[in-house]
Amino acid sequence: MRRWNGWGDDSIRPELPASGVTHLRERTGTAQPLPDATLEDVLRQVPGSRLPDHPLINKDPEIRVRHARGQSLPDWLAMRSGEFEVFPDGVAEPEAGEQVRELLELAVKERFAVIPYGGGTSVAGHINPVVGNKPVLTLSLARMNRLLDLDPESQIATFGAGTPGPLVESQLRARGYTLGHFPQSFELSTLGGWVASRSSGQQSLRYGRIEQLFAGGTVETLQGTLTIPTLPASSAGPDVREMVLGSEGRLGIITEARVRVTQLPERESFHVLFFPNWHTAREAARHMVQGRMPLSMVRLSNPTETETQLALAGHPGKIRMLERYLSLRGAGTGKCMMTIGVTGSKRQCRFALNEARRCCKAFQGVYLGSGMGRKWAENRFAMPYLRESLWQQGYAVDTLETATDWDNVDHLMGKIEESLRHGLADENQPVHVFSHLSHVYPQGSSIYTTYVFPVAESYEKTLARWQQLKHTTSAVIVENRGTISHQHGVGKDHAPWLHVEKGETGMLALRGLMTTFDPQGCLNPGTLLRERRVRPGAGKDNGG
Amino acid sequence: MRRWNGWGDDSIRPELPASGVTHLRERTGTAQPLPDATLEDVLRQVPGSRLPDHPLINKDPEIRVRHARGQSLPDWLAMRSGEFEVFPDGVAEPEAGEQVRELLELAVKERFAVIPYGGGTSVAGHINPVVGNKPVLTLSLARMNRLLDLDPESQIATFGAGTPGPLVESQLRARGYTLGHFPQSFELSTLGGWVASRSSGQQSLRYGRIEQLFAGGTVETLQGTLTIPTLPASSAGPDVREMVLGSEGRLGIITEARVRVTQLPERESFHVLFFPNWHTAREAARHMVQGRMPLSMVRLSNPTETETQLALAGHPGKIRMLERYLSLRGAGTGKCMMTIGVTGSKRQCRFALNEARRCCKAFQGVYLGSGMGRKWAENRFAMPYLRESLWQQGYAVDTLETATDWDNVDHLMGKIEESLRHGLADENQPVHVFSHLSHVYPQGSSIYTTYVFPVAESYEKTLARWQQLKHTTSAVIVENRGTISHQHGVGKDHAPWLHVEKGETGMLALRGLMTTFDPQGCLNPGTLLRERRVRPGAGKDNGG
Repeated sequence: MRRWNGWGDDSIRPELPASGVTHLRERTGTAQPLPDATLEDVLRQVPGSRLPDHPLINKDPEIRVRHARGQSLPDWLAMRSGEFEVFPDGVAEPEAGEQVRELLELAVKERFAVIPYGGGTSVAGHINPVVGNKPVLTLSLARMNRLLDLDPESQIATFGAGTPGPLVESQLRARGYTLGHFPQSFELSTLGGWVASRSSGQQSLRYGRIEQLFAGGTVETLQGTLTIPTLPASSAGPDVREMVLGSEGRLGIITEARVRVTQLPERESFHVLFFPNWHTAREAARHMVQGRMPLSMVRLSNPTETETQLALAGHPGKIRMLERYLSLRGAGTGKCMMTIGVTGSKRQCRFALNEARRCCKAFQGVYLGSGMGRKWAENRFAMPYLRESLWQQGYAVDTLETATDWDNVDHLMGKIEESLRHGLADENQPVHVFSHLSHVYPQGSSIYTTYVFPVAESYEKTLARWQQLKHTTSAVIVENRGTISHQHGVGKDHAPWLHVEKGETGMLALRGLMTTFDPQGCLNPGTLLRERRVRPGAGKDNGG
Repeated sequence: MRRWNGWGDDSIRPELPASGVTHLRERTGTAQPLPDATLEDVLRQVPGSRLPDHPLINKDPEIRVRHARGQSLPDWLAMRSGEFEVFPDGVAEPEAGEQVRELLELAVKERFAVIPYGGGTSVAGHINPVVGNKPVLTLSLARMNRLLDLDPESQIATFGAGTPGPLVESQLRARGYTLGHFPQSFELSTLGGWVASRSSGQQSLRYGRIEQLFAGGTVETLQGTLTIPTLPASSAGPDVREMVLGSEGRLGIITEARVRVTQLPERESFHVLFFPNWHTAREAARHMVQGRMPLSMVRLSNPTETETQLALAGHPGKIRMLERYLSLRGAGTGKCMMTIGVTGSKRQCRFALNEARRCCKAFQGVYLGSGMGRKWAENRFAMPYLRESLWQQGYAVDTLETATDWDNVDHLMGKIEESLRHGLADENQPVHVFSHLSHVYPQGSSIYTTYVFPVAESYEKTLARWQQLKHTTSAVIVENRGTISHQHGVGKDHAPWLHVEKGETGMLALRGLMTTFDPQGCLNPGTLLRERRVRPGAGKDNGG
């Protein structure tokens, strides 16, 4: 069954190899796990609901607990400690657009807030209710999870917006197609959630981000149904589709999504290479993407991540042999691991792999074949489970991610890692920090940084550690030409920094748009835009 | 010198071959040219300016005539007849963002309208002043035409928004780069105009549409300067960049554009193939793009366009030989011509061409090599000059363009052609109509239809013919799942049909956004959105 207080199915409990624990202990000191609250403890705290009675609204305490939090580290700490602070007043699981409309009309009439809920996998607080006077209804799209139509000629599939990753792929694969959108959260996150938060999948280099995959669909708004037609391209004014992408529930509830699918590829494989150092590895990645090599993925770990991944892989004997071999080939201390994907017809895959190997060779890349790549593909969605294993050893783990232009990648990665590594210096607490580039573009790259630290002696102090790290580093990101999020969205956790990136005038555009649709602020308040309201056309606001 | 009453440089006067004239005469009857007005005739009509005196504002009658009209057929008829109806009250040619800001502040204070002007190549009425009480200033970006910065690592170039195509490319090529954006209007249209109207270039299959090329930049709005940072990708809320793309001067004046450039390719060539019929040709095009073959262009003429192009090519002897050969190879009556482009490294070009030839062979395509492709590339920007030649023979020519999903391409192309072909049946006047697909996507294709008819006995009646054809066929497009424009934008000519495509709620989004920035409607009134204003948040409007 799905964990009520963590990631995924509770039957999956990956072991942390001894070499991994030693690796962390050496870098951050020993750790003492904190005790977990039970579901019963939490259920006792759930207050009475402030919502009106309605056949679509379920006020059962357990369903309210299970929809109260996402998967950010503060969510994790809240769920583990049992200190939820706030619960939705009820959960609705409509089965069709008409029921969504009915609930929205009720929300306006009865003045309650509505939070759309997909897979509950947000790591930025998208689906958390805010404390306030307004009752909160969480509107789960879980029952709208079917493939409704497939046009094989135009390669457009229509899904209910609540369809989670595995059901998207299984329903398409049965017909010979794939969407090809594989975010880390794939097992639980949903198509509507991907659209609402502008998600990106691991093979976006081939398939595109959700912006490229989302062709149109239906959004129920407080001003009526917004139907976005599918068009291959258009110059007919600003693209309304792009206003829905990233709207995070503020514009309306996405009920149906039409997506661009592809025939299942003839072949797919992943290949691992090692480079002597960061500079050569990064240049190889940049040259491959700027040279338009038709790869489906380029993923590049920096030296610390490479070292950590090898330590967490277990099999220390094998790893030692590998490292000896790599060292002989010129990739010793400071080496970087790259995983590339090739996907397509046999001929395309052969061409792409040859081109990539040729380019990497020019940057002293050592090609190791597809064995480790296969391993990566098998475990590609396992990372979130690792948090569970680390937690049981007393470690808290979180990630920060951004994207920036190539000329700034090294500078920004350095700044982020430095900010995190020394973020708990006041307490003399080292933080273990490592990064990879997971989405590369001709213009630049995403930077995905993981940080691990031992929990403090209480939940409160552990949360304070996170706040210290998150807040200082988020400021570092936006002040150094990074986006506040490349793939996780804004939610509530990133909202305070959005104005730096968008500027005052950009914030005016977003606020103007949202106010047009939701003048009373019923929809997902506090997410994306902080609740300082401004009358459109009234002049400048000060952004934040 | 640039023609004041038509396309391009007046020293370029392409000859229409006799075979072409015969071809048209056989299909539409003989034609009698209409007399052209002189510049002096027009200058006499220019009324006094209603604008205040300002050092940046030029009220000279000739500059006002030269900025009064674009390149639509009604514009052409107005310029040729000398019946301009309306002129801007003045033209400003600022050299920097501060001057643009100064003019915008003056516009608010003095209550005049501002029309941004790039190359004046709009074929949808974007830059035409509307008749009304408000004085009109045309703000030309012509002097902001320089490459301001080039970041070779991130491959980002910054240009003044008024830089025309040839200056974009020459400034980049000198440094080893290309933007790769080649719309038909390339010789005169500008980067800012491409962004404002969501333009698409002939090689968008490789380089992307302007939406993919525009990375960020500066827009002067009435609410302050909007600075869009360059980011390779972001999930931080709806993309403000996408609100500028297609804003057609309603949101503000684009002053600087930062674009994604590419290293000059090692190789580029264009290749021609013929197919036995439309069905096989279209399927070949669809399979190539859905199979992700790395071509830079796929351009496919339907049988009537193929026939017309061969007639207009001159050299009837050579053409007869070619047709005999094609007929022997299975491509006789009803044959379709396809031109494909391959661009990139030597190895990429070889791979792409082999893949394309293999695919086309499966659909009975006859490959003719790169000779005719070279010819196409040499004349790729010559088409607009042909209007001049046709006009002198008494023919009016115009185009309609749209895009739709593959499952609807044949249906929509048929409907458009039928509507145009029989559009003047009341007068017993045949119209010569032919189409091509010029931008193909995995999801669908653009459809570009040209129609030619003899001018009527007066300008008035010729305009009435155009209105009849344009209005009925625009309705056919939007009622049959086509976008009202794939590459020309909305302007004033397409604005009446925009609401069918966007829907009431989509129109509310656009109006909400524009009203936020320009509550008084100073900026390019009548373009994109017709002037029915609605208070944001006040509820539904009825769209049109």
